[in-house]
Amino acid sequence: MAAFLDIKSRPGGEGSVLPAEVVDELRRFVFAGGKRVRPLLCLLGWFAVAGPEASAGLASGGRTADVPAPVVGVAASLELFHAFALIHDDVMDDSSHRRGLPTVHHALAVRHAEGRSTAQARHVGAAAAVLVGDLALSWSDELIHAAGLTPGRLAAVLPLVDVMRTEVMAGQYLDIAASGHLSADVERALQVARYKTAKYTCERPLHIGATLAGAGPGLLEACTAFAVPLGEAFQLRDDVLGVFGDSALTGKSTLEDLRDGKNTVLLALALRRADTAQLHDLQTLVATPALDGEGAGRVREILVATGALAETENMIRDRLEQARHALAVSCFPPYVTAALQVFTDSQRARTS
Amino acid sequence: MAAFLDIKSRPGGEGSVLPAEVVDELRRFVFAGGKRVRPLLCLLGWFAVAGPEASAGLASGGRTADVPAPVVGVAASLELFHAFALIHDDVMDDSSHRRGLPTVHHALAVRHAEGRSTAQARHVGAAAAVLVGDLALSWSDELIHAAGLTPGRLAAVLPLVDVMRTEVMAGQYLDIAASGHLSADVERALQVARYKTAKYTCERPLHIGATLAGAGPGLLEACTAFAVPLGEAFQLRDDVLGVFGDSALTGKSTLEDLRDGKNTVLLALALRRADTAQLHDLQTLVATPALDGEGAGRVREILVATGALAETENMIRDRLEQARHALAVSCFPPYVTAALQVFTDSQRARTS
Repeated sequence: MAAFLDIKSRPGGEGSVLPAEVVDELRRFVFAGGKRVRPLLCLLGWFAVAGPEASAGLASGGRTADVPAPVVGVAASLELFHAFALIHDDVMDDSSHRRGLPTVHHALAVRHAEGRSTAQARHVGAAAAVLVGDLALSWSDELIHAAGLTPGRLAAVLPLVDVMRTEVMAGQYLDIAASGHLSADVERALQVARYKTAKYTCERPLHIGATLAGAGPGLLEACTAFAVPLGEAFQLRDDVLGVFGDSALTGKSTLEDLRDGKNTVLLALALRRADTAQLHDLQTLVATPALDGEGAGRVREILVATGALAETENMIRDRLEQARHALAVSCFPPYVTAALQVFTDSQRARTS
Repeated sequence: MAAFLDIKSRPGGEGSVLPAEVVDELRRFVFAGGKRVRPLLCLLGWFAVAGPEASAGLASGGRTADVPAPVVGVAASLELFHAFALIHDDVMDDSSHRRGLPTVHHALAVRHAEGRSTAQARHVGAAAAVLVGDLALSWSDELIHAAGLTPGRLAAVLPLVDVMRTEVMAGQYLDIAASGHLSADVERALQVARYKTAKYTCERPLHIGATLAGAGPGLLEACTAFAVPLGEAFQLRDDVLGVFGDSALTGKSTLEDLRDGKNTVLLALALRRADTAQLHDLQTLVATPALDGEGAGRVREILVATGALAETENMIRDRLEQARHALAVSCFPPYVTAALQVFTDSQRARTS
């Protein structure tokens, strides 16, 4: 990914009119952190199929040098696509920080502040960030196209990438359309989590990696059985961290999800279980831009007192158990199972 | 394109969680009008190479039934990509109308007005429109992937599509970064027009179509020699229509470009030629959100009095002449040349 961005910022080529700030911002954002979950699962999906020799390579340290360059290219493209999704997400939510640093639209507003009013600079920053995101999306395509896949493998993997994109965008759309309207519909919140995260973050990256190694339908189903519960647990953990996390570790404010009125499973459970006084407080405090630390403290009390937090932790535990079971009965090579097991266990008490 | 959107709105498939409003809005937007310039030029690029038999089909009426389905699919994908570009462009400029109808973000704000403040509904509308644009971009990929091209043709055409995207986004970025700062730099305004429009609207669609038919470098160069001056003329005409056009015909307000302070060649020429009083008026009136019809009238007077309008019309004429010359010396089949000639002539006095 670094090499690809270097090419994009080289004077000369088709990007020659592209201001340097575009690649600078994208590079800053992409290398500010991130857990690289999707590329990791893509590579593990590839290892799950690529056979004992490849798994032996994984056992001896799992350096990407053991993985063919086209597979690494596709894995990197998933991270660049994710950068697109986060950059647009931050514009849509008007988030100020991500990974402990200013978001792209905030940074670009500062760059373009000279000679402009604050409102104009914010507007230019948002518009420029939408375009940086559009470029990241287009370049994630280009990374796949230029990865050096055989035409057959390329044709096999592109439909999966297309489905993944539609799924995550559909999940995001549902999330936005519902935001600000408090709802006790736990099932619907879980459905959004399934599309926005479980399939996008876990299932499809595994499928894409496995398909690059020529997986058949049985193996893809085994990936799904493992990845969907894992991914739901991943989102439920994110929801908990979004309200109860340590912002020094997560890199983002614990007020934003509440201010935006994000319809998380955690919040839906609290709304379903709240008594009249608690319901009144939730309706007054959540989804209001003016929510402060004191108000958020009261919301946290209610999330604990109603048992919504404990229930969410139970749901995480159940799903991780399902994922572990799916792993145990899977046909993945032992080293792949071991790596996926480590990843699954790390969701139990993830703090960032 | 209609058939593709029908599939996307069918209950069941991967888009099953996608609210119906997404495809509804996209369909409404795509079929509200549009000149289909890019698909048309893509098909003509294909005809330019596909030989006498195909050209005979063009001569007998040019029905798309004579064009292989994969070529039609790629041509349609260019229109869906263009829908993406316009939807995001309208969000970035906060335009209210396009093709005589409310823009996507305005229509979606109305759909989501219930139970929300005006500011919240506008915010949800903008966020949802960014996602509808993202989906249109992803689906434009899918249309190419699913067009039924041979793996070899697919691999040949994807890099061209990637370059086209980077070019138009780079042009858009320059445009946004410069907007609001009045500049007399005519060359720079022309460079933006070259990337944002000439290459994107004319050169690359011809290249893509020609490549689908197996064009060599000589033919691609002949396309460039014709398409770049034509595309510059196209943008210069758009700039004139943006200020002097009949909004009943163009479907958009003649105040927006001036209010946004779009750095068009027309405006740069006026700034370069203006005397002190005219310069003062331009600096006071242009790039101010409060500009009214009277102010716009004064700006138009200055554009005429400085000779900026006449000079722009000269530039359009020169470029159309260059395009005509490039056609005359090209190796395109006669019917392709004739069709491109009609298109070129129509730019001379286009009103919408």
